[in-house]
Amino acid sequence: MKKEDYMLRAINLAKKAKFHTNPNPRVGCVIVKNNKVIGEGYHKKYGGAHAEVNAIKNCLKKFGSKKGKQLLKDSQVYVTLEPCSIKSKTPPCTNTLLEIMPKEVYCASLDPNKKINGNGVKILRKSGIKVEVGILKKKAIEMNKDFFFKHKNDKPYVRVKIAQTIDGKIALKNGKSKWITSKEARKNVQLLRIQSDAVLIGSNTLIKDNPRLNIRDVKVFKQPISIVLGNTHSAKKNMNIFKDNKKVIFANNYEKTELNQNFTNNLSFIKLTKKNSLNDLLKKLSKYDLNSILVEGGSKIFTSFISKNLADEIIFFISPKFLGKDSIDALSLESPLSIANTNNYIIDSTEMVGEDIKLVLKKN
Amino acid sequence: MKKEDYMLRAINLAKKAKFHTNPNPRVGCVIVKNNKVIGEGYHKKYGGAHAEVNAIKNCLKKFGSKKGKQLLKDSQVYVTLEPCSIKSKTPPCTNTLLEIMPKEVYCASLDPNKKINGNGVKILRKSGIKVEVGILKKKAIEMNKDFFFKHKNDKPYVRVKIAQTIDGKIALKNGKSKWITSKEARKNVQLLRIQSDAVLIGSNTLIKDNPRLNIRDVKVFKQPISIVLGNTHSAKKNMNIFKDNKKVIFANNYEKTELNQNFTNNLSFIKLTKKNSLNDLLKKLSKYDLNSILVEGGSKIFTSFISKNLADEIIFFISPKFLGKDSIDALSLESPLSIANTNNYIIDSTEMVGEDIKLVLKKN
Repeated sequence: MKKEDYMLRAINLAKKAKFHTNPNPRVGCVIVKNNKVIGEGYHKKYGGAHAEVNAIKNCLKKFGSKKGKQLLKDSQVYVTLEPCSIKSKTPPCTNTLLEIMPKEVYCASLDPNKKINGNGVKILRKSGIKVEVGILKKKAIEMNKDFFFKHKNDKPYVRVKIAQTIDGKIALKNGKSKWITSKEARKNVQLLRIQSDAVLIGSNTLIKDNPRLNIRDVKVFKQPISIVLGNTHSAKKNMNIFKDNKKVIFANNYEKTELNQNFTNNLSFIKLTKKNSLNDLLKKLSKYDLNSILVEGGSKIFTSFISKNLADEIIFFISPKFLGKDSIDALSLESPLSIANTNNYIIDSTEMVGEDIKLVLKKN
Repeated sequence: MKKEDYMLRAINLAKKAKFHTNPNPRVGCVIVKNNKVIGEGYHKKYGGAHAEVNAIKNCLKKFGSKKGKQLLKDSQVYVTLEPCSIKSKTPPCTNTLLEIMPKEVYCASLDPNKKINGNGVKILRKSGIKVEVGILKKKAIEMNKDFFFKHKNDKPYVRVKIAQTIDGKIALKNGKSKWITSKEARKNVQLLRIQSDAVLIGSNTLIKDNPRLNIRDVKVFKQPISIVLGNTHSAKKNMNIFKDNKKVIFANNYEKTELNQNFTNNLSFIKLTKKNSLNDLLKKLSKYDLNSILVEGGSKIFTSFISKNLADEIIFFISPKFLGKDSIDALSLESPLSIANTNNYIIDSTEMVGEDIKLVLKKN
């Protein structure tokens, strides 16, 4: 087997974790000695052991402690991300590797986290371990693209999800929107929530729809954070958003004390500056360690994110229905002066989902 | 070879005519004797010889007149549509067949034209020819579906083509719409025009855009008719619509004499009743023998056809652009009372066309 084959095996292992590592990246590790895999493992869920540790454990279990340690010495370690050099929920992986002393370490990419970024590699090299970075780098980054985006840009990747009719409406004038899109499309939204660390809505949507914003279709070990943007004065303690024991954040121009809404310990408050409040929000969310946010509505919120150029991806579910001129527009953006000025997005993918079509728009 | 194989061969021959037979159907014919094809042909273009005649000619050419005639007697004739029993631009095909006296005639389907519908079959059977109808019927009808629709419903099949942004706009407030969709989408519109017998626009679009409404990308032997709906008082003799030597129809509430616009011999007038003017138009167009109409705009026209349930198919080209709230809506339909009442269409097909997506909606 070639280096790329071992790395691909490590990537495929990493993917087994699905979405359970968020906001950590998915990482896989394969340890090789004399062209044979002697141990492999992956980071299974947030807070759990890292990939390198699980691969070593796997080796020791397979060969017993004594033989295992002998094999691990001078081995080749393939890991999809640079071993961490900092203590987080678990000890730094560089320490763990120095204990077994492999001959070579192959990383698909450096860790984009500025606290690590290259330091893990440096520490290993200092101890005489040969380190090579870059094997299947693209694939490894793609697998954790929200994580890489967040560390590169110091803000979460923002997905805006809009379920609209083909005439661009999201609800009747009376606010009714059940159900514009098909059951399958709504199932698909669950998948979007699963890959997101937080789901954001406007306070109008909170009050009108009383949504739960949870993941229902699969068992998850942690629900995405709910973020409500705008005036939450009318929020009530018994709203669905407070179910599921998940974190809820109210973000607006008020002080926590002004709102006086300490409904649960899970409720936090972010006070925004009046100017550039969306930019301010994304910055202030950094302490919650979110790789990505899913923006779910309503119209005013969609319009704000897109007009401020803060929607990194827009996912449209379009149903072949017409709601007519008196219904609520999905968007009410300012019109450009010329059509040439409007080309910010491209259609990245399309897919039929039940009776509707899903269009994923990405920045051009 | 089985009957179905010969009929499939006839269907494939028919398709070679592409769009050149409109408003006639595409028809193919294969003549078989002792399990060998002895002649084949298809209706090549409107006004030209019918499929049966071309197949017979092909046989006579191949085998010479004497041997040919001997072979044709007691042969099996496979034809994708019932042989015509009426004189049109050419003599009735039933006569032609009775001259050669085949043993069996296989038709994929009856001719839906009420003047023929079964009469062709009757005439042949009366003369002792065995006739079987229905082999690969579905395929044969699909190949000429506009033709079948027109004869079944006594009106042309109406395709509405809408090129809009993803926020449902077709032009800036100042009317500018060049170019919302990509070059490839505009090429695709040419294909839609090719399969249509007429292209319809509103008089506002005529005056504002001065469109030519012709087929440019391929050589055609006849341009689709241009139909302009609405007040054409401001139309001028030198407009692009009068180029290409094609028929133009102005349809509105005025008498021809009131309009006094005898710009060219190709210009005809249809006076519509004020009530139900669209239904009236489709009925009055029957004398122009159109299988299908392509409705190209603008917003008012789109809205009329869809709201009156007269759009049999809606083809959306959606570009990933936003034209904002002040731009012109593609549609301004009345809003329904409930969302359940809106489900008239399904998405029949989707396709990326350049940077845009093409969605074909058909009646549910």
